[in-house]
Amino acid sequence: MIEFIRELYPICRSITGAGVRETLNLINRHIPLQIHEVPTGTRVLDWEIPMEWNIRDAWVKDSSGKKIIDFRQLNLHILNYSIPINAKMTLAELKPHLFTIPEKSSLIPYRTSYYAENWGFCISHDQLISLSEDTYEVVIDADLSPGHLTYGELLIKGRSQEEMLISTHICHPSLCNDNLSGIAVCTWLARWLSQNTPHYSYRFLFIPGTIGAITWLARNETNLSRIKYGLVTSLLGINSVFTYKRSRSGNARIDHIVEQVLSKQTVQYNIINFIPYGYDERQFCSPGFNLPVGNLTRIPFGEYPEYHTSADNFDLISEKALNDSLELFYKVIQQIEADRCYVNLYPKGEPQLGKRGIYDHIGGRNDSKTLQLALLWILNYSDGHHSLTEISELSGIELTKVIEASEMLLEKRLIIYMNNQ
Amino acid sequence: MIEFIRELYPICRSITGAGVRETLNLINRHIPLQIHEVPTGTRVLDWEIPMEWNIRDAWVKDSSGKKIIDFRQLNLHILNYSIPINAKMTLAELKPHLFTIPEKSSLIPYRTSYYAENWGFCISHDQLISLSEDTYEVVIDADLSPGHLTYGELLIKGRSQEEMLISTHICHPSLCNDNLSGIAVCTWLARWLSQNTPHYSYRFLFIPGTIGAITWLARNETNLSRIKYGLVTSLLGINSVFTYKRSRSGNARIDHIVEQVLSKQTVQYNIINFIPYGYDERQFCSPGFNLPVGNLTRIPFGEYPEYHTSADNFDLISEKALNDSLELFYKVIQQIEADRCYVNLYPKGEPQLGKRGIYDHIGGRNDSKTLQLALLWILNYSDGHHSLTEISELSGIELTKVIEASEMLLEKRLIIYMNNQ
Amino acid sequence: MIEFIRELYPICRSITGAGVRETLNLINRHIPLQIHEVPTGTRVLDWEIPMEWNIRDAWVKDSSGKKIIDFRQLNLHILNYSIPINAKMTLAELKPHLFTIPEKSSLIPYRTSYYAENWGFCISHDQLISLSEDTYEVVIDADLSPGHLTYGELLIKGRSQEEMLISTHICHPSLCNDNLSGIAVCTWLARWLSQNTPHYSYRFLFIPGTIGAITWLARNETNLSRIKYGLVTSLLGINSVFTYKRSRSGNARIDHIVEQVLSKQTVQYNIINFIPYGYDERQFCSPGFNLPVGNLTRIPFGEYPEYHTSADNFDLISEKALNDSLELFYKVIQQIEADRCYVNLYPKGEPQLGKRGIYDHIGGRNDSKTLQLALLWILNYSDGHHSLTEISELSGIELTKVIEASEMLLEKRLIIYMNNQ
Repeated sequence: MIEFIRELYPICRSITGAGVRETLNLINRHIPLQIHEVPTGTRVLDWEIPMEWNIRDAWVKDSSGKKIIDFRQLNLHILNYSIPINAKMTLAELKPHLFTIPEKSSLIPYRTSYYAENWGFCISHDQLISLSEDTYEVVIDADLSPGHLTYGELLIKGRSQEEMLISTHICHPSLCNDNLSGIAVCTWLARWLSQNTPHYSYRFLFIPGTIGAITWLARNETNLSRIKYGLVTSLLGINSVFTYKRSRSGNARIDHIVEQVLSKQTVQYNIINFIPYGYDERQFCSPGFNLPVGNLTRIPFGEYPEYHTSADNFDLISEKALNDSLELFYKVIQQIEADRCYVNLYPKGEPQLGKRGIYDHIGGRNDSKTLQLALLWILNYSDGHHSLTEISELSGIELTKVIEASEMLLEKRLIIYMNNQ
Repeated sequence: MIEFIRELYPICRSITGAGVRETLNLINRHIPLQIHEVPTGTRVLDWEIPMEWNIRDAWVKDSSGKKIIDFRQLNLHILNYSIPINAKMTLAELKPHLFTIPEKSSLIPYRTSYYAENWGFCISHDQLISLSEDTYEVVIDADLSPGHLTYGELLIKGRSQEEMLISTHICHPSLCNDNLSGIAVCTWLARWLSQNTPHYSYRFLFIPGTIGAITWLARNETNLSRIKYGLVTSLLGINSVFTYKRSRSGNARIDHIVEQVLSKQTVQYNIINFIPYGYDERQFCSPGFNLPVGNLTRIPFGEYPEYHTSADNFDLISEKALNDSLELFYKVIQQIEADRCYVNLYPKGEPQLGKRGIYDHIGGRNDSKTLQLALLWILNYSDGHHSLTEISELSGIELTKVIEASEMLLEKRLIIYMNNQ
Repeated sequence: MIEFIRELYPICRSITGAGVRETLNLINRHIPLQIHEVPTGTRVLDWEIPMEWNIRDAWVKDSSGKKIIDFRQLNLHILNYSIPINAKMTLAELKPHLFTIPEKSSLIPYRTSYYAENWGFCISHDQLISLSEDTYEVVIDADLSPGHLTYGELLIKGRSQEEMLISTHICHPSLCNDNLSGIAVCTWLARWLSQNTPHYSYRFLFIPGTIGAITWLARNETNLSRIKYGLVTSLLGINSVFTYKRSRSGNARIDHIVEQVLSKQTVQYNIINFIPYGYDERQFCSPGFNLPVGNLTRIPFGEYPEYHTSADNFDLISEKALNDSLELFYKVIQQIEADRCYVNLYPKGEPQLGKRGIYDHIGGRNDSKTLQLALLWILNYSDGHHSLTEISELSGIELTKVIEASEMLLEKRLIIYMNNQ
């Protein structure tokens, strides 16, 4: 995954524009992404698709003609979504357009101004202090003009139309942990799922933050009831604690499942309640949608010093951390796959298993085998309200045996699958 | 408040009669009370308004003509609601009509006989023992005749028609803590509320115990659904523990609010579950009404030695205790005022705050201000089920900031008030 | 009860046949049982009534003509439901038809083959080892032919049509604890209940395991909603711990009641959650019926070494253990009888008790009697959702006083009985 991130790192992404398209095309080499283009001006919920932003070059030169800030060196230098400019100005005129982090004076911040027209540059505070009175030439060769918002989507169809939604943002430029680690893990996870026929369907979204989620929600409003589980993810590249932020209800199946998977990990983890800021769970969990969507990351946004700075680079992330994150997602999905409910078609009394050849004939003994017991447990609790996982927990019979027994009962047409709620 | 109690103390109150009217007139000097008169014989629920009782004088003289019991010295001496009598009798004939407290031999009890015709005197047990064989002249100059039951009511209208009910009994004669302390605190509280425009409406009842509550309920049965909160109160003059008795449901909003306010007090307090005896919560919480009404007192009825005796006088109560009680009610009402729910009019995704001028334009930073966060919390949880108080608790943002943010959102028409359930 | 068990012990019972009829006839001497005969071939839920099995004699003789296995000595020797045979064979041919318990080598097991045609003998493992090569004469003089399934039922009518179901299995041959102890205790319990007019109705089932319960359920499907409480029982003769296995819901009234009664016992007890194997609670608690039926035994099936062996005999059980079990059932039924809900006919405000002669006339005192309080508690909580037991628990007033007060209120027509849910 690190190699994939190396390909993605140099691209100057934003919420719209060529950087997003290039990113989606690179993902598309691994998984068959459907790419959507939504025109500028389209109404999406309370919002509107903004002008598309494309940047070719940007710099600040001092009076000697030396580029003292150069977009081509690091695309974080540009205030993301800056309008074009070509002007000479004094330091005093330039300064309000220079963004720094005084308390981390050597790092270059990542700043944006999507919805208020502005231009600017992001530099280290050390550099800011070193600037002398001079006449500066400021050039931003960018367009902010009608175009499209672009996002990628992949539906992996399972036997059931019920879906798990997995969403990651793709709008940040050269930042490794936030958001390239999320893009890489989601791509690898989608590829793995594509190679199987899962029970549930899985929908992956690679979208610009906020406006991307709002756009997808606006265009898919009538199908949201299919979403039974959801995770927003990113920040998966640092070898640290895992953090699960619950869905708004705090009591969704995804919450129980992720918490159960995490509780069996050897690595430390934190569980936090829903809060209405963070990533796109803000939109999925807005009260009018209230989807069962949690947020799974490692150390959360804003809680590591390199967050949204030039230090979120390859020194920060590791292949091992990415792999461990991917492994955790595998386990979550295995649990989700077992979180399905059957309905006993012979719910009145026990069906006669003997005549169907799946029961022990000599009675009176006290050594019923585990598989025999698993049949009885599934029959009794397949009322549409108990998943195989829950039956495994109730009975103390390991999940693999429960799944095996469920297959016997399915084959004998004693149970059928039903959508669970 | 002590001065007000001094005015009220000498009046011989009962469940009907001149004492009640005089009491309500004194309250009326402070707040604009509506005074209701309900005729004798009126059916009220399973009851009937009794004859009105008025007393002018009462005494017992010994054979030497000396008044050994004199109503004018202390109106507790009369068995409240005694029928008239003018007779001579032996000590043996008199004794069944003398009420004492043997275990508190120096105190005069307070006794009543509202619904069974009787006459009697209440004296100290010491005096009873000292009485010698003699011929006694017994005079009770009282009327028990068709008239009215009288009670006072004050509605302070808020922006919402939803009401809080605050009820105190006014039927006890010269007893300071029970019930004059309740009358004084409720009067002061109503006066304070009248000077504001609260969110909720507040209804104060100054009523005779039991029959007063039953009368008010019978006459207001169709409007009871407006009552969202209620407290029966009295016993507020002793500088002791506070006691909250929960509503019948035990889980009403008033229960949570009072318990929360008490938990932040420095003074000790007790919380007890609903029991179907005590004060007029018995009636408000009868199963056919089951109103969300709790009972807030200091040390409860029957649990202090002076209860319903001549020792419930000015030695027992203090201005400080009355003031502290009033302060507690102020806090309860502030919490009730914040216990209101809004509905987000843009519940699908986040509304775009930036275009409404209430969002920070430079993105990417991690120092969102509290007020910005409060906007998001209110928008996400304004689903008609979370009050401002609950949003404050969920978010950890102080209530005043939440209220400030709610006003911004109201002004921008992003939320509207709804009646909460 | 031991004497009754001595009468029942020699009978060779099975799920059908003469042994069942003889058993029911013996029970019928104590209680007026209704005996049902259901023909072979009748469809019952997913099952079918099997052929009726009757056995007259069975033996194995060695070549010297000596009976080495003799059904008449102990009816456990026959594999229950063996088909007839009359043949000579070698030891190697005989051996697959000999059932033993290697790890309890001196005991004879109890084995059955109801639904797969087979024949066999049960002997001690010691005997099996001692058998030498020989020609054996094998005779089973039995019929497996169209007939009936037989079960007994007794309904003791109470004032309410709501029922408690008490079911015990009667299909085991000479085994004292499993199932003769259950038959004896249920017979004695039914006799005691018949001598009273209980509030609830009580239905006793004496049925063959599994197929008997399935047959009864199939024939009574439309009346199952009358069952408010139920217990499957057996294993009551060993002086050991009591074991209560909860109903499938785990939260039925029967669960609370039995757990409460057990918690007041001095003897140890265990509570276990529902599991879908064991006795006929498997059928009553199948998801399509989901009846509020628990299972009450002493040490459970399979957990004592004599279980389903020749050692489950008179050495194992005692009259004291049987009597203590019966006493426990008495207590459970007393609690069930008190688990009834009334409805206050004057639910708005308190009804005026004084005018009905059931209230104390002198007011103002603080020594209300328990019975007076019980009246108020019942009136307030008789909303159809609180039983007398619950009112006793809520109020802290002992149940006998609550029942006494309920009778006063019933007589004054202030409350009426309603079916509780």
